Amino acid sequence: MVVCLPDTQDDEPRIPIHLSRVGVTGVKKLLTLKRKEKRPIILLPTFDAFVDLPSTQKGTHMSRTPEAISEVVDEVATLASASVESLCADIVNKMLEKHEYAKRVEVRMTSDYMFMKESPVTDNKSQEMGKLIANAVGIREDDESISIRKCIGAEVIGMTVCPCAQESVREVDKSNLLKFLDEETCEKVLDTVTFASHNQRGIGTVLIEVPENEYIDGEKIIEIIESSMSSPVCELLKRPDENAVVMNAHQNPVFVEDCVRTMNEKIVKEFSHLPNDTLITTRQENQESIHRHNAFAEKVSTLGSLKEELNL
Amino acid sequence: MVVCLPDTQDDEPRIPIHLSRVGVTGVKKLLTLKRKEKRPIILLPTFDAFVDLPSTQKGTHMSRTPEAISEVVDEVATLASASVESLCADIVNKMLEKHEYAKRVEVRMTSDYMFMKESPVTDNKSQEMGKLIANAVGIREDDESISIRKCIGAEVIGMTVCPCAQESVREVDKSNLLKFLDEETCEKVLDTVTFASHNQRGIGTVLIEVPENEYIDGEKIIEIIESSMSSPVCELLKRPDENAVVMNAHQNPVFVEDCVRTMNEKIVKEFSHLPNDTLITTRQENQESIHRHNAFAEKVSTLGSLKEELNL
Amino acid sequence: MVVCLPDTQDDEPRIPIHLSRVGVTGVKKLLTLKRKEKRPIILLPTFDAFVDLPSTQKGTHMSRTPEAISEVVDEVATLASASVESLCADIVNKMLEKHEYAKRVEVRMTSDYMFMKESPVTDNKSQEMGKLIANAVGIREDDESISIRKCIGAEVIGMTVCPCAQESVREVDKSNLLKFLDEETCEKVLDTVTFASHNQRGIGTVLIEVPENEYIDGEKIIEIIESSMSSPVCELLKRPDENAVVMNAHQNPVFVEDCVRTMNEKIVKEFSHLPNDTLITTRQENQESIHRHNAFAEKVSTLGSLKEELNL
Amino acid sequence: MVVCLPDTQDDEPRIPIHLSRVGVTGVKKLLTLKRKEKRPIILLPTFDAFVDLPSTQKGTHMSRTPEAISEVVDEVATLASASVESLCADIVNKMLEKHEYAKRVEVRMTSDYMFMKESPVTDNKSQEMGKLIANAVGIREDDESISIRKCIGAEVIGMTVCPCAQESVREVDKSNLLKFLDEETCEKVLDTVTFASHNQRGIGTVLIEVPENEYIDGEKIIEIIESSMSSPVCELLKRPDENAVVMNAHQNPVFVEDCVRTMNEKIVKEFSHLPNDTLITTRQENQESIHRHNAFAEKVSTLGSLKEELNL
Repeated sequence: MVVCLPDTQDDEPRIPIHLSRVGVTGVKKLLTLKRKEKRPIILLPTFDAFVDLPSTQKGTHMSRTPEAISEVVDEVATLASASVESLCADIVNKMLEKHEYAKRVEVRMTSDYMFMKESPVTDNKSQEMGKLIANAVGIREDDESISIRKCIGAEVIGMTVCPCAQESVREVDKSNLLKFLDEETCEKVLDTVTFASHNQRGIGTVLIEVPENEYIDGEKIIEIIESSMSSPVCELLKRPDENAVVMNAHQNPVFVEDCVRTMNEKIVKEFSHLPNDTLITTRQENQESIHRHNAFAEKVSTLGSLKEELNL
Repeated sequence: MVVCLPDTQDDEPRIPIHLSRVGVTGVKKLLTLKRKEKRPIILLPTFDAFVDLPSTQKGTHMSRTPEAISEVVDEVATLASASVESLCADIVNKMLEKHEYAKRVEVRMTSDYMFMKESPVTDNKSQEMGKLIANAVGIREDDESISIRKCIGAEVIGMTVCPCAQESVREVDKSNLLKFLDEETCEKVLDTVTFASHNQRGIGTVLIEVPENEYIDGEKIIEIIESSMSSPVCELLKRPDENAVVMNAHQNPVFVEDCVRTMNEKIVKEFSHLPNDTLITTRQENQESIHRHNAFAEKVSTLGSLKEELNL
Repeated sequence: MVVCLPDTQDDEPRIPIHLSRVGVTGVKKLLTLKRKEKRPIILLPTFDAFVDLPSTQKGTHMSRTPEAISEVVDEVATLASASVESLCADIVNKMLEKHEYAKRVEVRMTSDYMFMKESPVTDNKSQEMGKLIANAVGIREDDESISIRKCIGAEVIGMTVCPCAQESVREVDKSNLLKFLDEETCEKVLDTVTFASHNQRGIGTVLIEVPENEYIDGEKIIEIIESSMSSPVCELLKRPDENAVVMNAHQNPVFVEDCVRTMNEKIVKEFSHLPNDTLITTRQENQESIHRHNAFAEKVSTLGSLKEELNL
Repeated sequence: MVVCLPDTQDDEPRIPIHLSRVGVTGVKKLLTLKRKEKRPIILLPTFDAFVDLPSTQKGTHMSRTPEAISEVVDEVATLASASVESLCADIVNKMLEKHEYAKRVEVRMTSDYMFMKESPVTDNKSQEMGKLIANAVGIREDDESISIRKCIGAEVIGMTVCPCAQESVREVDKSNLLKFLDEETCEKVLDTVTFASHNQRGIGTVLIEVPENEYIDGEKIIEIIESSMSSPVCELLKRPDENAVVMNAHQNPVFVEDCVRTMNEKIVKEFSHLPNDTLITTRQENQESIHRHNAFAEKVSTLGSLKEELNL
């Protein structure tokens, strides 16, 4: 039997300081989650998982952490019905068991996530890819009770059209139209025409953090993100679909700031029942077609503060 | 003195086969190239460098390769005038000296490259970033003579507007305009208005491969790439500049295929004097704002074939 | 109905040159391939797919390409038994149907690939991740017949120990041991002890290109890559397993060149029945723990040449 | 003159909520900072910069942000002596001027950073690359006064050897040595020999956050990170250097946890004079050669807490 003698993980370290997070990053798994009456969810999640380390302990028993992830992945695969949203919390609980010295455990997960979509005019069905994000933090209180907060979210690509550039194009075209149109006809033309603007891929992200027992539907989050941009995007677009996407998007131009505000408004409506201390992170990053850099907006707030701001 | 005894690099390998490329990847350097009467070029290049290995040799003397890169970088920094375009060829020559067993040496380099630009209306000067690409391959012939082919190129971001989506928007808007405009006025409106389309960041790449003694100006390549898209992009755009970029781009919609064809046409004009066997690689990749995937086009051809195709 | 009028894809382009590759990059799908009597293979492949474009055609009908990918992915999901190795060839055939003007079609695919492994001592089963790579090129000959070459490969992480550094450590330790041991005892000690060296993650890649009707087992390729390094790696290692991995690896030190030579030797044995013009690409990249850059080796050769070099 | 009419940035948004951060990401610049009596520092920094947005404002005047970055980069280039450590704070001040509605401004910067090193035995000088990290947050208080906190840090690659795997190898070798050596000689051998372990690239990161007027030397941070691993790495290593690096590293094995504890101990010593509320983030990530995933440790603490833990 091979043993590890002097300088084991359980020794006292020479420098007796507490460490915030010790663990592993980049553990990749394949996971099939069966659901009642729905197609199973297939994920290829990448996990990061950490425990804190007391100042009296030299090292974490590192192998217990990938072991915890593996065990939960195996267990969940056997269930008749499993929820993606509780996966990280399950791993947290398993790690709190295995690392008896830990008081704080954190597990984070990101995975490509496939959802189906229909093209806007020709109704062709296509696979689309977003990202599912989840994490959970477990605290072992002094009385040994465990409280877990979990966070569910998603990241989705959509299309954003800039309102201000569109407005400036409209103004220049208007001054040229007035050279041969009367004002009244000109106004009718301005209301009819779809004016150009710069548009680009936008990436919207929403993360909602709640106590363990609350349930958040990841697909609802994807809908909120998609519907807060100028238009969703779609992998299979025939000519009529492409036209619909472009025209709809240009009738719905949004600043990067608008995306974030709209996501918050929809989140408050959809998740109004959640506790006031629910932490909501919303983020939008647009890959501006007129620049090499991106435009970015973010809001981090509790549901309670959000309701106050919106007088709800 | 520490020596490496059995199993040295110069031994015969157990499996006597020739290896195509052996070396290092990801060697990063800082390099300032002084130029006569121009501002120095500052690069942070990343180098990959390889030699071939005869079937009679177990290993390459690996440290000689980063050594060759280092020495050339140091030497070039002392020159009153140095050219980025010959950097890789210099390293190839140095490596052929150090690796006396090698018959084929290859060095590749990529670096961020800063060039200045003026915004289209307000003339504000700004730093812009592209990528400079270079490589060189040296062959040691049987008579010990050395022939080197080098390749210079660049990769630049610009803006592309889709002609077909714009056409479809124009058609839909036209049918709506005809509800209250006569045909003649409608045509005038269609000629005046800037119709929407999907647009996005496009990434153009050009690589031109020539014998060692030929000179290719990297900045000329950057100009060719930028001017083959719907519009260049710019980091500092005030409101009038943004308007100009959007309107110019929409007056110059291009398919991803057009970008590649245009780059080739400009290359033939600009570099017409080069030998017929000059290898030209042109590539365009557009980050389609209506999709999650990109559109891509590429042409690889000799200058001679290109001239034939264009009847030049 | 929305039509695209002037400047359609089928028009003649202003610059009449042939384009080598036009298509899409980064199309991501979820795919479950059922197999007879084995667990299904689940993949999240990313596809790039291209057609060539004649000089008489302005644009490819871009949407037909993601459409082809989608259709094959849907069809393959219904089969009782499907092979990953023919996926790209199926898409090539579909694209040759849809793009009647194309003479050359190319499809490339990369996907994370899960395989099971047992830890060397404690026999714990764990999920491991490699990458599966596949591509196919279809040529439509003048007589309308189609010839397809396909390429199957994989990329896997393993552990590599440097022989030369180990030899130098052995020499230094030997000179220190001889200060208090006689030569004979010293030799026995040298044969017993596991001397240090620098070791690191190595990434091995193998691609084998064959005519369409040949079958290559992706998992066989993964075995060849893993067994050509100093040791495979494993996600779940308890103390005895970690010790076994380290000791085995240090008893099997390999130069980056050795990994490539060994992979070739094993490929010739395993795939000896393939045609002589089978193209074999083998690559090894080690993330050297003593450097910021990587060591790299590669061989590209036909099976016929390889057999000649090895006198087989 | 082109103006932007309805829906301008200064309008009231439909959804009146405050946004935490609005701005740009990925702005890349080239920057030469002259220093008195030292070689200039050349950086290719990438900036992210944000302002907060009051609930009464629809959009930030987005172009002012890249403008602020550009202006500071231009100004700093003219100075006879400029400090990298105050770059972000300068941009924050400029942005607080330009965005009069903002109460919180944040600027982040990362850049490759070149430092010189000598190989341990042959004293060859080589360029090495690390990353310099800086950020600054400015708050405009109610009385219009501005308080700025800045953060300086670095990220460096080094080599880490695992103590526990080395211990297990030592134990196995010891049991084999005892088959032919007496205990006393065996102990002498165990003290002399350099036993194997798994080793790998480790990436250490330190971030120190202080009030604006404090000065932190980025190069001191790089030294602390490098000296907290088993050994620094070096780009140019001849045989004797490689041997020295490997042997020194194996005489100094460290857990990922040790790296973080050691960095904290050195930071307390080096920066003891800083205020107690100085926030210190230390992070280590090792690319374990026996796994596909990484080992990770982190501590976030104030200097005051750290001093308490260490009884200083």
